[in-house]
Amino acid sequence: MPNPTAAMLVIGDEILSGRTRDANMYHLAGELTKVGIDLCEVRVVSDDRAAIMAAVNALRSAFDHLFTSGGIGPTHDDITADCVAAAFGAQIDVRADARAILAAHYARAGTEINDARLRMARIPDGAVLIDNPISAAPGFTLENVHVMAGVPAIFQAMVASVLPKLSGGAPLVSESVRIERGEGDVAGPLAALAAAHSELSLGSYPFSQNGIYGTNIVVRGSDAESVAAVARDLRAQFPGAI
Amino acid sequence: MPNPTAAMLVIGDEILSGRTRDANMYHLAGELTKVGIDLCEVRVVSDDRAAIMAAVNALRSAFDHLFTSGGIGPTHDDITADCVAAAFGAQIDVRADARAILAAHYARAGTEINDARLRMARIPDGAVLIDNPISAAPGFTLENVHVMAGVPAIFQAMVASVLPKLSGGAPLVSESVRIERGEGDVAGPLAALAAAHSELSLGSYPFSQNGIYGTNIVVRGSDAESVAAVARDLRAQFPGAI
Repeated sequence: MPNPTAAMLVIGDEILSGRTRDANMYHLAGELTKVGIDLCEVRVVSDDRAAIMAAVNALRSAFDHLFTSGGIGPTHDDITADCVAAAFGAQIDVRADARAILAAHYARAGTEINDARLRMARIPDGAVLIDNPISAAPGFTLENVHVMAGVPAIFQAMVASVLPKLSGGAPLVSESVRIERGEGDVAGPLAALAAAHSELSLGSYPFSQNGIYGTNIVVRGSDAESVAAVARDLRAQFPGAI
Repeated sequence: MPNPTAAMLVIGDEILSGRTRDANMYHLAGELTKVGIDLCEVRVVSDDRAAIMAAVNALRSAFDHLFTSGGIGPTHDDITADCVAAAFGAQIDVRADARAILAAHYARAGTEINDARLRMARIPDGAVLIDNPISAAPGFTLENVHVMAGVPAIFQAMVASVLPKLSGGAPLVSESVRIERGEGDVAGPLAALAAAHSELSLGSYPFSQNGIYGTNIVVRGSDAESVAAVARDLRAQFPGAI
Protein backbone atom coordinates (compact mmCIF):
# COMPACT_ATOMS: atom_id res chain seq x y z
CA MET A 1 0.00 0.00 0.00
CA PRO A 2 1.46 3.40 -0.90
CA ASN A 3 2.18 5.83 1.93
CA PRO A 4 -0.37 8.52 2.82
CA THR A 5 0.43 11.86 1.17
CA ALA A 6 0.63 15.31 2.72
CA ALA A 7 1.08 18.98 1.88
CA MET A 8 2.05 21.94 4.04
CA LEU A 9 0.85 25.54 3.85
CA VAL A 10 3.00 28.20 5.54
CA ILE A 11 1.09 31.46 6.07
CA GLY A 12 2.85 34.73 6.76
CA ASP A 13 4.13 37.95 5.20
CA GLU A 14 7.21 37.75 7.43
CA ILE A 15 8.49 34.67 5.56
CA LEU A 16 7.89 36.16 2.10
CA SER A 17 9.54 39.49 2.98
CA GLY A 18 12.69 37.71 4.17
CA ARG A 19 12.33 39.03 7.73
CA THR A 20 11.98 35.54 9.20
CA ARG A 21 13.60 32.32 8.05
CA ASP A 22 11.00 29.55 8.14
CA ALA A 23 11.90 26.67 10.45
CA ASN A 24 8.64 24.74 10.42
CA MET A 25 8.89 23.22 6.94
CA TYR A 26 12.19 21.53 7.77
CA HIS A 27 10.84 20.24 11.08
CA LEU A 28 7.59 18.87 9.63
CA ALA A 29 9.39 17.27 6.66
CA GLY A 30 11.62 15.29 9.00
CA GLU A 31 8.79 14.21 11.32
CA LEU A 32 6.56 13.06 8.46
CA THR A 33 9.38 11.01 6.96
CA LYS A 34 9.83 9.24 10.31
CA VAL A 35 6.18 8.11 10.41
CA GLY A 36 5.91 7.16 6.73
CA ILE A 37 3.79 10.03 5.41
CA ASP A 38 5.07 11.47 2.11
CA LEU A 39 5.32 15.28 2.08
CA CYS A 40 4.60 16.06 -1.59
CA GLU A 41 4.22 19.83 -1.76
CA VAL A 42 4.73 22.97 0.33
CA ARG A 43 3.27 26.39 -0.39
CA VAL A 44 4.02 29.70 1.31
CA VAL A 45 1.42 32.46 0.94
CA SER A 46 0.91 35.88 2.52
CA ASP A 47 -1.73 36.93 5.07
CA ASP A 48 -4.28 37.30 2.29
CA ARG A 49 -7.76 35.78 2.50
CA ALA A 50 -8.11 34.81 -1.16
CA ALA A 51 -4.60 33.32 -1.34
CA ILE A 52 -5.06 31.26 1.84
CA MET A 53 -8.49 29.94 0.83
CA ALA A 54 -7.32 28.96 -2.66
CA ALA A 55 -4.27 27.13 -1.32
CA VAL A 56 -6.26 25.33 1.42
CA ASN A 57 -8.80 24.05 -1.08
CA ALA A 58 -6.22 23.02 -3.70
CA LEU A 59 -4.02 21.16 -1.21
CA ARG A 60 -6.66 19.50 0.98
CA SER A 61 -8.29 17.94 -2.09
CA ALA A 62 -5.01 16.84 -3.72
CA PHE A 63 -3.43 15.15 -0.68
CA ASP A 64 -4.46 12.97 2.26
CA HIS A 65 -3.39 15.57 4.84
CA LEU A 66 -2.74 19.30 4.92
CA PHE A 67 -0.72 20.89 7.72
CA THR A 68 -0.80 24.68 8.11
CA SER A 69 1.61 26.90 10.05
CA GLY A 70 0.97 30.48 11.15
CA GLY A 71 -1.77 33.07 11.43
CA ILE A 72 -3.65 31.86 14.52
CA GLY A 73 -2.58 34.54 17.04
CA PRO A 74 -4.60 37.48 18.43
CA THR A 75 -3.78 40.24 15.91
CA HIS A 76 -5.70 41.62 12.92
CA ASP A 77 -3.51 39.74 10.43
CA ASP A 78 -4.20 36.35 12.09
CA ILE A 79 -6.90 35.13 9.70
CA THR A 80 -6.04 31.47 9.17
CA ALA A 81 -8.86 29.97 11.28
CA ASP A 82 -11.50 32.09 9.55
CA CYS A 83 -10.06 31.30 6.10
CA VAL A 84 -10.00 27.54 6.77
CA ALA A 85 -13.60 27.66 7.99
CA ALA A 86 -14.61 29.60 4.88
CA ALA A 87 -12.75 27.12 2.64
CA PHE A 88 -14.88 24.32 4.12
CA GLY A 89 -18.06 26.41 4.23
CA ALA A 90 -18.08 25.80 8.02
CA GLN A 91 -19.42 28.19 10.68
CA ILE A 92 -16.84 29.75 13.00
CA ASP A 93 -17.17 31.63 16.29
CA VAL A 94 -15.62 31.76 19.76
CA ARG A 95 -16.13 28.19 20.98
CA ALA A 96 -16.81 27.34 24.63
CA ASP A 97 -14.12 24.65 24.96
CA ALA A 98 -11.38 26.85 23.52
CA ARG A 99 -12.57 29.85 25.55
CA ALA A 100 -12.39 27.81 28.75
CA ILE A 101 -8.78 26.80 27.98
CA LEU A 102 -7.77 30.43 27.39
CA ALA A 103 -9.69 31.70 30.44
CA ALA A 104 -7.90 29.21 32.72
CA HIS A 105 -4.51 30.11 31.20
CA TYR A 106 -4.93 33.88 31.57
CA ALA A 107 -6.45 33.53 35.07
CA ARG A 108 -3.29 31.67 36.18
CA ALA A 109 -1.17 34.43 34.65
CA GLY A 110 -3.32 37.22 36.12
CA THR A 111 -3.78 38.68 32.60
CA GLU A 112 -7.03 40.13 31.30
CA ILE A 113 -8.73 38.07 28.54
CA ASN A 114 -9.70 40.84 26.12
CA ASP A 115 -11.34 40.78 22.67
CA ALA A 116 -8.03 40.32 20.88
CA ARG A 117 -7.11 37.25 22.98
CA LEU A 118 -10.62 35.85 22.49
CA ARG A 119 -9.94 35.76 18.73
CA MET A 120 -7.73 32.76 19.54
CA ALA A 121 -10.84 30.85 20.70
CA ARG A 122 -12.45 31.14 17.24
CA ILE A 123 -12.73 27.50 16.16
CA PRO A 124 -14.79 26.14 13.23
CA ASP A 125 -17.79 23.92 13.99
CA GLY A 126 -16.83 20.26 13.86
CA ALA A 127 -13.10 20.82 14.45
CA VAL A 128 -11.12 18.89 17.08
CA LEU A 129 -8.75 21.00 19.21
CA ILE A 130 -4.97 20.49 19.09
CA ASP A 131 -3.28 20.91 22.47
CA ASN A 132 -0.86 23.83 22.95
CA PRO A 133 1.25 23.03 26.02
CA ILE A 134 3.23 26.27 25.69
CA SER A 135 0.83 29.21 25.42
CA ALA A 136 -2.58 27.49 25.70
CA ALA A 137 -4.26 28.89 22.54
CA PRO A 138 -5.20 25.69 20.70
CA GLY A 139 -4.80 24.63 17.08
CA PHE A 140 -7.44 22.47 15.46
CA THR A 141 -8.03 19.62 13.02
CA LEU A 142 -10.96 20.02 10.61
CA GLU A 143 -11.36 16.84 8.54
CA ASN A 144 -7.91 16.38 6.91
CA VAL A 145 -6.59 19.88 7.67
CA HIS A 146 -4.40 20.43 10.74
CA VAL A 147 -4.11 24.13 11.70
CA MET A 148 -1.11 24.96 13.87
CA ALA A 149 0.79 27.98 15.21
CA GLY A 150 3.74 29.58 13.41
CA VAL A 151 5.98 30.09 16.46
CA PRO A 152 8.42 27.17 16.04
CA ALA A 153 8.32 25.83 19.62
CA ILE A 154 4.51 25.78 19.59
CA PHE A 155 4.37 24.36 16.06
CA GLN A 156 6.66 21.51 17.09
CA ALA A 157 4.59 20.73 20.19
CA MET A 158 1.42 20.65 18.09
CA VAL A 159 3.00 18.37 15.48
CA ALA A 160 4.04 16.01 18.27
CA SER A 161 0.46 15.80 19.50
CA VAL A 162 -1.15 15.39 16.05
CA LEU A 163 1.12 12.85 14.35
CA PRO A 164 0.48 9.86 16.68
CA LYS A 165 -3.22 10.13 15.77
CA LEU A 166 -2.63 9.75 12.03
CA SER A 167 -2.07 6.38 10.42
CA GLY A 168 1.20 6.48 8.58
CA GLY A 169 2.55 4.04 6.00
CA ALA A 170 5.73 2.03 6.16
CA PRO A 171 8.51 4.22 7.59
CA LEU A 172 11.07 5.31 5.06
CA VAL A 173 14.50 3.67 5.32
CA SER A 174 17.53 5.44 3.90
CA GLU A 175 21.23 4.74 3.44
CA SER A 176 23.93 7.17 2.35
CA VAL A 177 26.93 6.27 0.20
CA ARG A 178 29.80 8.77 0.10
CA ILE A 179 31.76 8.69 -3.17
CA GLU A 180 34.78 10.92 -3.70
CA ARG A 181 33.97 11.52 -7.37
CA GLY A 182 32.09 14.36 -9.09
CA GLU A 183 28.38 14.06 -9.78
CA GLY A 184 29.18 13.85 -13.49
CA ASP A 185 31.12 10.62 -12.96
CA VAL A 186 28.44 9.07 -10.77
CA ALA A 187 25.44 10.07 -12.88
CA GLY A 188 25.67 7.26 -15.48
CA PRO A 189 25.78 4.26 -13.09
CA LEU A 190 23.24 6.00 -10.85
CA ALA A 191 20.72 6.40 -13.67
CA ALA A 192 21.04 2.67 -14.48
CA LEU A 193 20.40 1.73 -10.84
CA ALA A 194 17.43 4.10 -10.62
CA ALA A 195 15.90 2.56 -13.73
CA ALA A 196 16.35 -0.96 -12.34
CA HIS A 197 14.85 -0.02 -8.94
CA SER A 198 11.73 2.04 -9.54
CA GLU A 199 10.55 1.16 -5.99
CA LEU A 200 13.39 3.31 -4.57
CA SER A 201 14.32 6.97 -4.76
CA LEU A 202 18.02 7.68 -5.46
CA GLY A 203 19.17 11.20 -4.66
CA SER A 204 22.53 12.71 -5.56
CA TYR A 205 24.04 15.54 -3.47
CA PRO A 206 27.41 17.06 -4.39
CA PHE A 207 29.72 18.14 -1.57
CA SER A 208 33.02 19.97 -1.23
CA GLN A 209 34.74 19.72 2.12
CA ASN A 210 38.34 20.57 3.11
CA GLY A 211 39.41 20.46 -0.51
CA ILE A 212 37.80 17.07 -1.15
CA TYR A 213 34.87 17.06 -3.49
CA GLY A 214 32.48 14.25 -4.16
CA THR A 215 28.90 13.07 -4.15
CA ASN A 216 26.65 11.69 -1.44
CA ILE A 217 24.09 9.26 -2.82
CA VAL A 218 21.03 8.74 -0.63
CA VAL A 219 18.99 5.60 -1.32
CA ARG A 220 15.47 5.79 0.10
CA GLY A 221 12.55 3.38 0.18
CA SER A 222 10.30 1.38 2.44
CA ASP A 223 11.94 -1.98 1.60
CA ALA A 224 15.06 -2.13 3.78
CA GLU A 225 16.57 -5.12 1.91
CA SER A 226 16.27 -3.40 -1.43
CA VAL A 227 17.82 -0.20 -0.04
CA ALA A 228 20.78 -2.16 1.36
CA ALA A 229 21.28 -4.05 -1.89
CA VAL A 230 21.51 -0.86 -3.97
CA ALA A 231 23.92 0.72 -1.47
CA ARG A 232 26.14 -2.40 -1.69
CA ASP A 233 26.01 -2.27 -5.47
CA LEU A 234 27.12 1.41 -5.47
CA ARG A 235 30.04 0.67 -3.15
CA ALA A 236 31.10 -2.20 -5.41
CA GLN A 237 31.03 0.07 -8.49
CA PHE A 238 32.99 2.86 -6.76
CA PRO A 239 35.84 1.34 -4.78
CA GLY A 240 36.70 3.51 -1.78
CA ALA A 241 33.11 4.68 -1.31
CA ILE A 242 31.86 4.55 2.26
CA MET B 1 2.63 52.15 -9.52
CA PRO B 2 2.43 48.85 -7.61
CA ASN B 3 5.62 46.83 -7.27
CA PRO B 4 6.29 43.95 -9.67
CA THR B 5 5.24 40.57 -8.24
CA ALA B 6 7.19 37.34 -8.06
CA ALA B 7 6.90 33.69 -7.08
CA MET B 8 9.54 31.09 -6.31
CA LEU B 9 9.54 27.37 -7.10
CA VAL B 10 11.93 25.14 -5.12
CA ILE B 11 12.45 21.76 -6.76
CA GLY B 12 13.84 18.78 -4.90
CA ASP B 13 12.96 15.62 -3.00
CA GLU B 14 15.73 16.38 -0.48
CA ILE B 15 13.80 19.40 0.85
CA LEU B 16 10.49 17.52 1.15
CA SER B 17 12.07 14.52 2.88
CA GLY B 18 13.65 16.77 5.52
CA ARG B 19 17.18 15.76 4.54
CA THR B 20 18.15 19.30 3.56
CA ARG B 21 16.98 22.57 5.07
CA ASP B 22 16.21 25.01 2.27
CA ALA B 23 18.30 28.18 2.37
CA ASN B 24 17.39 29.71 -0.97
CA MET B 25 13.87 30.91 -0.13
CA TYR B 26 15.15 33.02 2.74
CA HIS B 27 17.93 34.47 0.59
CA LEU B 28 15.72 35.30 -2.39
CA ALA B 29 13.00 36.81 -0.17
CA GLY B 30 15.49 39.26 1.32
CA GLU B 31 17.06 40.20 -2.03
CA LEU B 32 13.69 40.81 -3.71
CA THR B 33 12.55 43.03 -0.83
CA LYS B 34 15.70 45.14 -1.28
CA VAL B 35 14.93 45.84 -4.94
CA GLY B 36 11.19 46.40 -4.52
CA ILE B 37 9.83 43.19 -6.04
CA ASP B 38 7.04 41.60 -3.95
CA LEU B 39 7.50 37.86 -3.36
CA CYS B 40 3.87 36.66 -3.19
CA GLU B 41 4.09 32.87 -3.17
CA VAL B 42 6.60 30.04 -2.83
CA ARG B 43 6.01 26.41 -3.76
CA VAL B 44 8.20 23.40 -3.08
CA VAL B 45 7.64 20.32 -5.27
CA SER B 46 9.46 17.02 -5.77
CA ASP B 47 11.55 15.91 -8.77
CA ASP B 48 8.38 14.99 -10.63
CA ARG B 49 7.71 16.10 -14.20
CA ALA B 50 3.96 16.67 -13.87
CA ALA B 51 4.31 18.53 -10.55
CA ILE B 52 7.08 20.81 -11.87
CA MET B 53 5.26 21.62 -15.12
CA ALA B 54 1.97 22.40 -13.34
CA ALA B 55 3.69 24.68 -10.82
CA VAL B 56 5.74 26.49 -13.51
CA ASN B 57 2.65 27.20 -15.58
CA ALA B 58 0.50 28.29 -12.62
CA LEU B 59 3.14 30.63 -11.19
CA ARG B 60 4.54 32.16 -14.39
CA SER B 61 1.06 33.21 -15.47
CA ALA B 62 -0.02 34.54 -12.04
CA PHE B 63 3.06 36.69 -11.30
CA ASP B 64 5.45 39.00 -13.14
CA HIS B 65 8.50 36.81 -12.39
CA LEU B 66 9.13 33.20 -11.42
CA PHE B 67 12.45 32.15 -9.89
CA THR B 68 13.26 28.42 -9.69
CA SER B 69 15.87 26.71 -7.55
CA GLY B 70 17.24 23.19 -8.04
CA GLY B 71 17.26 20.32 -10.53
CA ILE B 72 19.75 21.59 -13.12
CA GLY B 73 22.71 19.29 -12.35
CA PRO B 74 23.99 16.28 -14.33
CA THR B 75 22.04 13.42 -12.75
CA HIS B 76 18.91 11.54 -13.85
CA ASP B 77 16.71 13.44 -11.37
CA ASP B 78 17.78 16.86 -12.72
CA ILE B 79 14.80 17.51 -14.95
CA THR B 80 14.03 21.19 -14.36
CA ALA B 81 15.34 22.53 -17.68
CA ASP B 82 13.37 19.97 -19.69
CA CYS B 83 10.21 20.60 -17.64
CA VAL B 84 10.45 24.38 -18.07
CA ALA B 85 10.94 23.95 -21.83
CA ALA B 86 7.92 21.62 -21.96
CA ALA B 87 5.83 24.07 -19.91
CA PHE B 88 6.51 26.73 -22.57
CA GLY B 89 6.24 24.28 -25.48
CA ALA B 90 9.84 25.24 -26.36
CA GLN B 91 12.44 23.00 -28.00
CA ILE B 92 15.38 21.97 -25.83
CA ASP B 93 18.74 20.38 -26.65
CA VAL B 94 22.44 20.76 -25.88
CA ARG B 95 23.11 24.34 -26.97
CA ALA B 96 26.42 25.44 -28.47
CA ASP B 97 26.97 28.46 -26.19
CA ALA B 98 26.37 26.47 -22.99
CA ARG B 99 28.45 23.56 -24.30
CA ALA B 100 31.37 25.89 -25.00
CA ILE B 101 31.24 27.24 -21.43
CA LEU B 102 31.28 23.72 -19.97
CA ALA B 103 34.00 22.52 -22.35
CA ALA B 104 36.30 25.39 -21.34
CA HIS B 105 35.60 24.77 -17.63
CA TYR B 106 36.31 21.03 -17.75
CA ALA B 107 39.36 21.51 -19.99
CA ARG B 108 40.88 23.82 -17.35
CA ALA B 109 40.11 21.21 -14.68
CA GLY B 110 41.41 18.34 -16.82
CA THR B 111 38.09 16.52 -16.39
CA GLU B 112 36.33 14.59 -19.13
CA ILE B 113 33.09 16.16 -20.41
CA ASN B 114 30.84 13.09 -20.58
CA ASP B 115 27.15 12.62 -21.46
CA ALA B 116 26.02 13.31 -17.90
CA ARG B 117 27.88 16.63 -17.75
CA LEU B 118 26.57 17.56 -21.20
CA ARG B 119 23.03 17.38 -19.74
CA MET B 120 23.90 20.68 -18.04
CA ALA B 121 24.21 22.31 -21.49
CA ARG B 122 20.56 21.51 -22.32
CA ILE B 123 19.02 24.98 -22.71
CA PRO B 124 15.61 25.80 -24.23
CA ASP B 125 15.48 27.71 -27.52
CA GLY B 126 15.11 31.43 -26.89
CA ALA B 127 16.51 31.37 -23.36
CA VAL B 128 19.24 33.78 -22.18
CA LEU B 129 22.03 32.16 -20.12
CA ILE B 130 22.61 33.09 -16.46
CA ASP B 131 26.27 33.22 -15.49
CA ASN B 132 27.57 30.66 -12.95
CA PRO B 133 30.88 31.98 -11.62
CA ILE B 134 31.34 28.98 -9.31
CA SER B 135 30.94 25.77 -11.31
CA ALA B 136 30.32 27.10 -14.85
CA ALA B 137 27.07 25.21 -15.68
CA PRO B 138 24.72 28.08 -16.53
CA GLY B 139 21.17 28.82 -15.47
CA PHE B 140 18.82 30.53 -17.92
CA THR B 141 16.00 33.03 -18.24
CA LEU B 142 13.10 32.06 -20.54
CA GLU B 143 10.63 34.96 -20.81
CA ASN B 144 9.69 35.67 -17.15
CA VAL B 145 11.10 32.43 -15.68
CA HIS B 146 14.59 32.45 -14.14
CA VAL B 147 16.02 28.94 -13.73
CA MET B 148 18.82 28.65 -11.18
CA ALA B 149 20.85 26.03 -9.32
CA GLY B 150 19.89 24.62 -5.91
CA VAL B 151 23.36 24.68 -4.33
CA PRO B 152 23.09 27.81 -2.15
CA ALA B 153 26.39 29.46 -3.13
CA ILE B 154 25.59 29.06 -6.84
CA PHE B 155 21.97 30.11 -6.36
CA GLN B 156 23.09 33.30 -4.62
CA ALA B 157 25.60 34.11 -7.36
CA MET B 158 22.92 33.63 -10.03
CA VAL B 159 20.42 35.81 -8.15
CA ALA B 160 23.07 38.52 -7.95
CA SER B 161 23.53 38.44 -11.72
CA VAL B 162 19.80 38.31 -12.59
CA LEU B 163 18.30 40.94 -10.26
CA PRO B 164 20.08 44.03 -11.64
CA LYS B 165 18.48 43.26 -15.04
CA LEU B 166 14.92 43.35 -13.70
CA SER B 167 13.08 46.57 -13.10
CA GLY B 168 11.91 46.70 -9.52
CA GLY B 169 9.43 49.02 -7.88
CA ALA B 170 9.99 51.35 -4.96
CA PRO B 171 12.18 49.63 -2.36
CA LEU B 172 10.35 48.61 0.79
CA VAL B 173 11.15 50.65 3.91
CA SER B 174 10.57 49.12 7.34
CA GLU B 175 10.80 50.20 10.96
CA SER B 176 10.55 47.99 14.06
CA VAL B 177 8.96 49.02 17.36
CA ARG B 178 9.72 46.87 20.40
CA ILE B 179 6.91 46.86 22.97
CA GLU B 180 7.24 44.94 26.24
CA ARG B 181 3.59 43.93 26.27
CA GLY B 182 1.85 40.75 25.07
CA GLU B 183 0.42 40.57 21.54
CA GLY B 184 -3.07 40.52 23.07
CA ASP B 185 -2.53 44.01 24.56
CA VAL B 186 -1.10 45.42 21.35
CA ALA B 187 -3.65 43.90 18.98
CA GLY B 188 -6.43 46.46 19.49
CA PRO B 189 -4.44 49.67 18.83
CA LEU B 190 -2.55 47.85 16.04
CA ALA B 191 -5.76 46.93 14.23
CA ALA B 192 -6.92 50.57 14.37
CA LEU B 193 -3.59 51.77 12.90
CA ALA B 194 -3.69 49.09 10.18
CA ALA B 195 -7.23 50.16 9.20
CA ALA B 196 -6.18 53.82 9.03
CA HIS B 197 -3.06 53.03 6.94
CA SER B 198 -4.04 50.59 4.22
CA GLU B 199 -0.92 51.66 2.24
CA LEU B 200 1.27 49.98 4.89
CA SER B 201 1.68 46.44 6.18
CA LEU B 202 1.82 46.11 9.98
CA GLY B 203 3.22 42.82 11.26
CA SER B 204 3.20 41.64 14.86
CA TYR B 205 5.86 39.20 16.15
CA PRO B 206 5.79 37.98 19.77
CA PHE B 207 9.11 37.43 21.54
CA SER B 208 10.30 36.04 24.83
CA GLN B 209 13.89 36.77 25.81
CA ASN B 210 15.65 36.43 29.18
CA GLY B 211 12.32 36.34 30.99
CA ILE B 212 11.01 39.45 29.23
CA TYR B 213 8.17 38.92 26.85
CA GLY B 214 6.70 41.36 24.39
CA THR B 215 5.88 42.12 20.80
CA ASN B 216 7.90 43.50 17.92
CA ILE B 217 5.78 45.47 15.49
CA VAL B 218 7.24 45.84 12.00
CA VAL B 219 5.80 48.65 9.87
CA ARG B 220 6.50 48.19 6.14
CA GLY B 221 5.71 50.23 3.09
CA SER B 222 7.24 52.16 0.22
CA ASP B 223 6.38 55.61 1.68
CA ALA B 224 9.11 56.31 4.26
CA GLU B 225 7.27 59.25 5.85
CA SER B 226 4.14 57.24 6.43
CA VAL B 227 6.17 54.35 7.93
CA ALA B 228 7.91 56.75 10.33
CA ALA B 229 4.63 58.40 11.35
CA VAL B 230 3.02 55.09 12.29
CA ALA B 231 6.11 54.01 14.26
CA ARG B 232 5.98 57.33 16.18
CA ASP B 233 2.29 56.82 16.87
CA LEU B 234 2.93 53.34 18.29
CA ARG B 235 5.69 54.60 20.57
CA ALA B 236 3.37 57.35 21.82
CA GLN B 237 0.63 54.81 22.61
CA PHE B 238 3.00 52.41 24.40
CA PRO B 239 5.32 54.43 26.64
CA GLY B 240 8.65 52.66 27.05
CA ALA B 241 8.52 51.15 23.55
CA ILE B 242 11.75 51.48 21.58
